[in-house]
Amino acid sequence: MAYITSIESIDIRFPTSEQLDGSDAMNPDPDYSAAYCVLHTSEGPEGHGMTFTIGRGNDLCVAAISQLGQQLIGLELTDLRSQMGPLWKKITGDSQFRWLGPEKGVVHLAAAALINALWDLLAKQEELPLWRLLSTMSGEELYDLVDWNYLSDVVSKEEIITHLNATARTADTRITVLEKSGYPAYTTSAGWLGYSDEKMRELLQEAVDAGWTTFKMKVGSDLDDDKRRARLIREFIGQDGQLMMDANQVWGVNEAIRWMRELSEFNPGWIEEPTSPDDILGHAKIARALAPIPVATGEHCHNAVMFKQFMEAGGLSICQLDSCRLASINEIIGVLILAWKFDIPVCPHAGGVGLCEYVQHISMFDYTRVSCSTDGRVIEYVDHLHEHFKDPVRLVNGRYAAPQVPGYSIEMHPETLSQYVYPDGPVWSSRLR
Amino acid sequence: MAYITSIESIDIRFPTSEQLDGSDAMNPDPDYSAAYCVLHTSEGPEGHGMTFTIGRGNDLCVAAISQLGQQLIGLELTDLRSQMGPLWKKITGDSQFRWLGPEKGVVHLAAAALINALWDLLAKQEELPLWRLLSTMSGEELYDLVDWNYLSDVVSKEEIITHLNATARTADTRITVLEKSGYPAYTTSAGWLGYSDEKMRELLQEAVDAGWTTFKMKVGSDLDDDKRRARLIREFIGQDGQLMMDANQVWGVNEAIRWMRELSEFNPGWIEEPTSPDDILGHAKIARALAPIPVATGEHCHNAVMFKQFMEAGGLSICQLDSCRLASINEIIGVLILAWKFDIPVCPHAGGVGLCEYVQHISMFDYTRVSCSTDGRVIEYVDHLHEHFKDPVRLVNGRYAAPQVPGYSIEMHPETLSQYVYPDGPVWSSRLR
Repeated sequence: MAYITSIESIDIRFPTSEQLDGSDAMNPDPDYSAAYCVLHTSEGPEGHGMTFTIGRGNDLCVAAISQLGQQLIGLELTDLRSQMGPLWKKITGDSQFRWLGPEKGVVHLAAAALINALWDLLAKQEELPLWRLLSTMSGEELYDLVDWNYLSDVVSKEEIITHLNATARTADTRITVLEKSGYPAYTTSAGWLGYSDEKMRELLQEAVDAGWTTFKMKVGSDLDDDKRRARLIREFIGQDGQLMMDANQVWGVNEAIRWMRELSEFNPGWIEEPTSPDDILGHAKIARALAPIPVATGEHCHNAVMFKQFMEAGGLSICQLDSCRLASINEIIGVLILAWKFDIPVCPHAGGVGLCEYVQHISMFDYTRVSCSTDGRVIEYVDHLHEHFKDPVRLVNGRYAAPQVPGYSIEMHPETLSQYVYPDGPVWSSRLR
Repeated sequence: MAYITSIESIDIRFPTSEQLDGSDAMNPDPDYSAAYCVLHTSEGPEGHGMTFTIGRGNDLCVAAISQLGQQLIGLELTDLRSQMGPLWKKITGDSQFRWLGPEKGVVHLAAAALINALWDLLAKQEELPLWRLLSTMSGEELYDLVDWNYLSDVVSKEEIITHLNATARTADTRITVLEKSGYPAYTTSAGWLGYSDEKMRELLQEAVDAGWTTFKMKVGSDLDDDKRRARLIREFIGQDGQLMMDANQVWGVNEAIRWMRELSEFNPGWIEEPTSPDDILGHAKIARALAPIPVATGEHCHNAVMFKQFMEAGGLSICQLDSCRLASINEIIGVLILAWKFDIPVCPHAGGVGLCEYVQHISMFDYTRVSCSTDGRVIEYVDHLHEHFKDPVRLVNGRYAAPQVPGYSIEMHPETLSQYVYPDGPVWSSRLR
């Protein structure tokens, strides 16, 4: 009988701060990193998973993965699929670790990495890409994956199961659409704060030539600079292209309202993270003041309880859940169902490292079984670091192609794992010397 | 010139789970622990600080303290008092660590320990117990300690400074009251879930004999058992004594309402943590449904932005801030001022280890300079582990006596630090063998 023999957790960091990739008003020098874990097994496939960080503290997540993972050693894998719900509760429910959150911060990020690895393992066992595996599940099976204790005041078991069983009957049609045409995307490659105008022009021209029509720029450091860069982007994409803006939490509530009124002339497609990611009621104030500009947030929204309230309070119009901050597919399914209930489109956060690989599965499952729509929905895309993955994302005409390889698409090349391990891999030992 | 020479961080754990001290519906087997740090200096006093956890994961906080603390090595101490505001932003603002929160979880707990140690150092420099030092500060000085960026939509700079300067003029009167009569307290020693009825009766008799009139019991595991224990406590304390109830987050929103309606016959003084500590809107629903029973929460409320919303939304009637979860005095002053603005009493969370020692300073400062009242306010008291501190709390007639020794009262005996260090101290090496 196959079982988990050991958990390996690895501190992988990429020295991206050297090129100012990903710089924004709050994060001037990120080193994109993965707290990576491998579930070694006695036979059959391994599970690979990670959580995403931007450098310092990645080792704290790696240490937390090792500790939380102790619960999985010896786990029998014959009926893993039916254990996924209870395992989620077990991993996130350890009372002593729960004190350090609950369901937030380092411990929850580590839980995400472990549970992501379990899902990778299961999908490999079932020889399907994860989005396809999820698409085949019954309403009851999907319902049982989620811990509804703190969510059931806004949506009932009956309406969830009825909806998911109804969508099961027509899922094949949508699977065919995805396999033929992929899923819509947008790019942030050209909009970082740290780039010169010249580099922005060059990247914009490349992106327009490659068929992109939706762009995102970082705002919030300097209003005149924001206006200049918005004008430059609008020159390239015209009034028909979509221009999203992202403040990365720099403003207070009233400042967000004032600043975005100044930028409204550039017709923003949304304003993302205008203030503290914990400020549900603040986001609701901003949304009311800036309407009809949509407010988007979620990459720092740490659990489904927070998303429930953001949706109830009108604090977000676009749900940008993060595949490594929520504790994997179980919690993400809860948020997808809440978003369906409140009629809010999910446009997952991506970029960084590994996030694009993950979120394509989430959006595609959302399309086959939950919202069953791509209207107003796009997956973020950034062209960084995909070369490190065995099954990297494939973009065709500005759309994500449907993953075909069994698993959750996150397995990195062995050379990457040995080269970029921090601080002893050759990439780092040479820099830290 | 005095400066910080090194940061020592120590994993201190007490094997309290062996006696079921502190057991509740969510936390069946806590080992009360301190991620403890010492700021060593080139001359003059050291600073001691800690954050509180319940066992596993304490090492993650210890590691985070070491890393965040790197920023303090070499810090010059000649004008520490004026640096306390900027230091708070520096320690909590590191962009790479911020990704792991922001302002929550392991990293924020570690920031609390470090900044607590800075306040201990400052109070020792100024040769005052911390509550006395804070009581002497001007409105402008207190205002500048807090990061108002995410809080300023509900309270203005002008009203804060005006209020704090007004209270400064009459603070001496209240300092005299505290030094003479102390601050009101309540006890949870007799209400834990894990105790037998016999042990509860014994502890209740002791507590009533010692002059206690306010008690707290844990609820939420079994309704019949809750009723039986509530009846037992009411037998001892009568209808005049106060009986608080604490569910430690076990319920969903609707379940909390149903359960507490069943317990309302015992006239609870409040219901504490009825559901997820992140569910601001859920707490507001519960508060509306159960009125006039007050809803209390805060020991897991991770930052001032969350408290701001709990107060705005009517999600709490009693603010139970935690001295080790909020990032020390700076953030706590922000919450005290919000509570004043929204007219909500602050009754800090205590118990565990070290929390009683800390919160007496907070409530006494609240009385001298912020709310200027003790009406409806009590400090939690649990009679555990005080023997490990050099300047332990002193209870006189069920009230906290005002601390007199310079500092923040958290310094542990050297023998405790050597005996209880995990996993190599003798207390643990014998148990783990």
